[in-house]
Amino acid sequence: MKRLVLLMHCPDKKGIIASVTNFVHQQNGNIVYIDQYVDRIQSTFFMRIEVEGNYNLSNFELFKTSFENEHSSIFQISCSFYLADILPKMAVFVSKYDHCLYDILAQQRSGKLSCTIPFIISNHMDLEPIAKQFGIPFYYIPITNNSKEKAEQKQLILLKKYEVDCIVLARYMQILSSRIIEVYPSKIINIHHSFLPAFPGAKPYHSAFQRGVKIIGATSHYVTEELDAGPIIEQDIIRVSHGHEVKDFILKGQDLERIVLLRGLKLHCERKIMTYNNKTIVFN
Amino acid sequence: MKRLVLLMHCPDKKGIIASVTNFVHQQNGNIVYIDQYVDRIQSTFFMRIEVEGNYNLSNFELFKTSFENEHSSIFQISCSFYLADILPKMAVFVSKYDHCLYDILAQQRSGKLSCTIPFIISNHMDLEPIAKQFGIPFYYIPITNNSKEKAEQKQLILLKKYEVDCIVLARYMQILSSRIIEVYPSKIINIHHSFLPAFPGAKPYHSAFQRGVKIIGATSHYVTEELDAGPIIEQDIIRVSHGHEVKDFILKGQDLERIVLLRGLKLHCERKIMTYNNKTIVFN
Amino acid sequence: MKRLVLLMHCPDKKGIIASVTNFVHQQNGNIVYIDQYVDRIQSTFFMRIEVEGNYNLSNFELFKTSFENEHSSIFQISCSFYLADILPKMAVFVSKYDHCLYDILAQQRSGKLSCTIPFIISNHMDLEPIAKQFGIPFYYIPITNNSKEKAEQKQLILLKKYEVDCIVLARYMQILSSRIIEVYPSKIINIHHSFLPAFPGAKPYHSAFQRGVKIIGATSHYVTEELDAGPIIEQDIIRVSHGHEVKDFILKGQDLERIVLLRGLKLHCERKIMTYNNKTIVFN
Amino acid sequence: MKRLVLLMHCPDKKGIIASVTNFVHQQNGNIVYIDQYVDRIQSTFFMRIEVEGNYNLSNFELFKTSFENEHSSIFQISCSFYLADILPKMAVFVSKYDHCLYDILAQQRSGKLSCTIPFIISNHMDLEPIAKQFGIPFYYIPITNNSKEKAEQKQLILLKKYEVDCIVLARYMQILSSRIIEVYPSKIINIHHSFLPAFPGAKPYHSAFQRGVKIIGATSHYVTEELDAGPIIEQDIIRVSHGHEVKDFILKGQDLERIVLLRGLKLHCERKIMTYNNKTIVFN
Repeated sequence: MKRLVLLMHCPDKKGIIASVTNFVHQQNGNIVYIDQYVDRIQSTFFMRIEVEGNYNLSNFELFKTSFENEHSSIFQISCSFYLADILPKMAVFVSKYDHCLYDILAQQRSGKLSCTIPFIISNHMDLEPIAKQFGIPFYYIPITNNSKEKAEQKQLILLKKYEVDCIVLARYMQILSSRIIEVYPSKIINIHHSFLPAFPGAKPYHSAFQRGVKIIGATSHYVTEELDAGPIIEQDIIRVSHGHEVKDFILKGQDLERIVLLRGLKLHCERKIMTYNNKTIVFN
Repeated sequence: MKRLVLLMHCPDKKGIIASVTNFVHQQNGNIVYIDQYVDRIQSTFFMRIEVEGNYNLSNFELFKTSFENEHSSIFQISCSFYLADILPKMAVFVSKYDHCLYDILAQQRSGKLSCTIPFIISNHMDLEPIAKQFGIPFYYIPITNNSKEKAEQKQLILLKKYEVDCIVLARYMQILSSRIIEVYPSKIINIHHSFLPAFPGAKPYHSAFQRGVKIIGATSHYVTEELDAGPIIEQDIIRVSHGHEVKDFILKGQDLERIVLLRGLKLHCERKIMTYNNKTIVFN
Repeated sequence: MKRLVLLMHCPDKKGIIASVTNFVHQQNGNIVYIDQYVDRIQSTFFMRIEVEGNYNLSNFELFKTSFENEHSSIFQISCSFYLADILPKMAVFVSKYDHCLYDILAQQRSGKLSCTIPFIISNHMDLEPIAKQFGIPFYYIPITNNSKEKAEQKQLILLKKYEVDCIVLARYMQILSSRIIEVYPSKIINIHHSFLPAFPGAKPYHSAFQRGVKIIGATSHYVTEELDAGPIIEQDIIRVSHGHEVKDFILKGQDLERIVLLRGLKLHCERKIMTYNNKTIVFN
Repeated sequence: MKRLVLLMHCPDKKGIIASVTNFVHQQNGNIVYIDQYVDRIQSTFFMRIEVEGNYNLSNFELFKTSFENEHSSIFQISCSFYLADILPKMAVFVSKYDHCLYDILAQQRSGKLSCTIPFIISNHMDLEPIAKQFGIPFYYIPITNNSKEKAEQKQLILLKKYEVDCIVLARYMQILSSRIIEVYPSKIINIHHSFLPAFPGAKPYHSAFQRGVKIIGATSHYVTEELDAGPIIEQDIIRVSHGHEVKDFILKGQDLERIVLLRGLKLHCERKIMTYNNKTIVFN
């Protein structure tokens, strides 16, 4: 028995759920999870289904084709299909901070993050020892003001060569250009160390300290052209007080960053996220 | 257009969702919300549906009958049907603490708690002025060691007379006997001032202080025969430290109590809760 | 035995704590609480002390004078002294929302909010019945584009007449002008229904929904000339999901608003807050 | 300039703070942090001070002696003194779960956990590769029903040989006997995967699932003779719902466990905890 994941959306119309569940039923599939959401303002219907059945690569293709044939014209459904046991390949981009990297590698190694990690890219050498600790290829691609284009082309070659599905910016202190972003729409996940939309951009902990907030946060989100403005996947917060200095914010925040990033990565790798209107729909 | 709520459960079987959604579709209903849960250990299927349609009291009855005819024998469905705009009648039992009572009355008055409140019962006179403030009948039924049975019979008469649907124990410092509980199965909601199952019974804040916990909690739950052991609806917590005394626990806890109780009451009044195996399934 | 509260700050200098605690000791006072904070960047020292002793209005004055004589010249201390049982007089400004008002009045009535409430001001009549329920004078002062100056002058007359110490804007949907703000520096507390500095100004729940955040918040803060930019006293948050509409944000947020506002008011009324550099130091 | 930490407690008596701060002042020390707590029921005074000064190992001893001479007889002070830059040696005990171990090693390596880790002990071989990854000695000491005493004696020899100061049980699935506990009073830190005192002992996630709680927790605490009943250092929680199975509780809980354990370890290693009456006083 294999598991199959469907993510779909279409204009809201009476009878969609009945039609889809009927179809799965006729195909001898058993719906294990079903989650739906209707955006009533946009009148759009979203659904995520997990189906258990006797699937292999060939009848999986058949399932997809039949599904589309039966539904596309009636309901104008856009649909993505995944076999749950084919893991996404995720590239990790880092700079100098190690806390997110350690968590990603440890959790992937322990089987809690359902992906493979073909390589790590960094613009600094600092974290190479951690890559070595975990036996993962480490590519050092330095970036200067003038070398950014060249560096990104090197990155793209690696991403293509390894057939990478998605990218995590694990405190990667560089801004990606559209050169990379447009190749990976809704497939690049960043962790920003503030409670977005508060304090976008550089040094959010310093700004939070300056403003005298009583709570700091972290946000994992998909990367879009506009800095720190992409669809938010997950956020969390921790309390601070007047007695905490910027360095305390940074230390406390690092726990948040890794937790919030990992939650985002797990949701993505388990195909539980749809993006729409610069927002995420998280079926969890 | 009226809204109809269905709560149903049955042995898990392929095709239930398809069958039910088909039925609603044929009846010209539009499914506005659908939430389902499968208990895979017990192999039991639960579903909550909100349907919009042209319902009135007579075709509502027809809908129920047709639904049961089409599904009961095939799927052994147990089902409850509600018209969303017929509000439950909720009796409020209190003793001396006013914080939960104020919240219940204020939120009901503001339209945020979807019920009517026919009366307040108390074993003390202390809160009568609040009942008066809000213009709600207040019944003073004192309870002594010897008078409990008689008191509960008075309560039952009132409950029957007003056709009460459910009861909230809003810091009512008395234990109900089975005399009342069995008349209102999964319909009496209590707020317990601890993070159950820690510290059941009397004086939980004192016990929490004694144990030196760093977090205190509150729990809203359905009342069953066993004290503080009924299905949990909602819980929440707040941090404490060594510097807080019992009186601080009590003060901080009161905010929790009213928030957690009100959340439970709202879920109940909006028919979003099913109980099963001494647990709640909360479709929210 | 009475309790006395001292709030003080001065340039950081070795020996301050020793000097102050010595002084209290010599005056037969017993330090019940002592909290201090040093801003190491500004090199400024802050302290809050609660002292128990045999105080009355006359030796309280003596205490103050002696304290200042002994410390002001050496340490350049700025100090505020309060007798704990002289409660501040707090005016309540509201518009149409009732949830914060209900909480303020209920908690003040129950003795959990240590202040007196001489009157309620509103630019609408909607909440007058609640004022009546609690027997508190209600002044209806409507505000139009042209009448704001006149309205504020009426407000100032009332504030003066009742010798008001501080003001709470309990979802008062008007912006105060400097006319009032400058009379009450660090004495006007507002509740803003977002996690500041995110979403200042009007309709923050709509903006939060639009941005697709996963957590919403509320912030109580002192009012300054710049809108929603004054010293933050307290913040708290609650989770939301893609499934929540703006109206759900509003409902969930109202619980936050009243909790966060009340926490701020209690801290203020118990003289646990100092403001400095547009931040609060909260000794709790 | 070095930093010195004092932890002290004594019967509460007027003038203690003045006396101690005077002493530090006279010794040319500058109090950087001062936190105090009075247990008013037990009438006991607790204080933690961080002092900056020109300290080395010899005048540190002098400081201690002078302090005790001046205060012990008058105030019956019990006092511990630490030089902040002499790190405690912490032994790590594990079984098969890797999530806490990864966090401990990663954070110690990054300088965020102020201790040295002389070795790891385990009753299973599973985690040896992680010890190797981080280059830390790994001692495999299997435990059977009959071999426990012998195993603990081996452990004690190692603890003595490496002059270990404290022990962390990082999901070590064995119960320590008094043989070890009495050698390390308030120096063995355990992580228990429930919100104590709820669900002590084995399989707390299963019990939590069975009870139908809506929130699960984790607790770091000092180990005492009674199982899971020692002084609580830190707790935290995460929400669950009816839709989560035991395996989801376990996965969600693991994030809690490592966060809560690490917070406890950091507080301990930074000498911010005092224990008293089976509770902790955490100066943070």
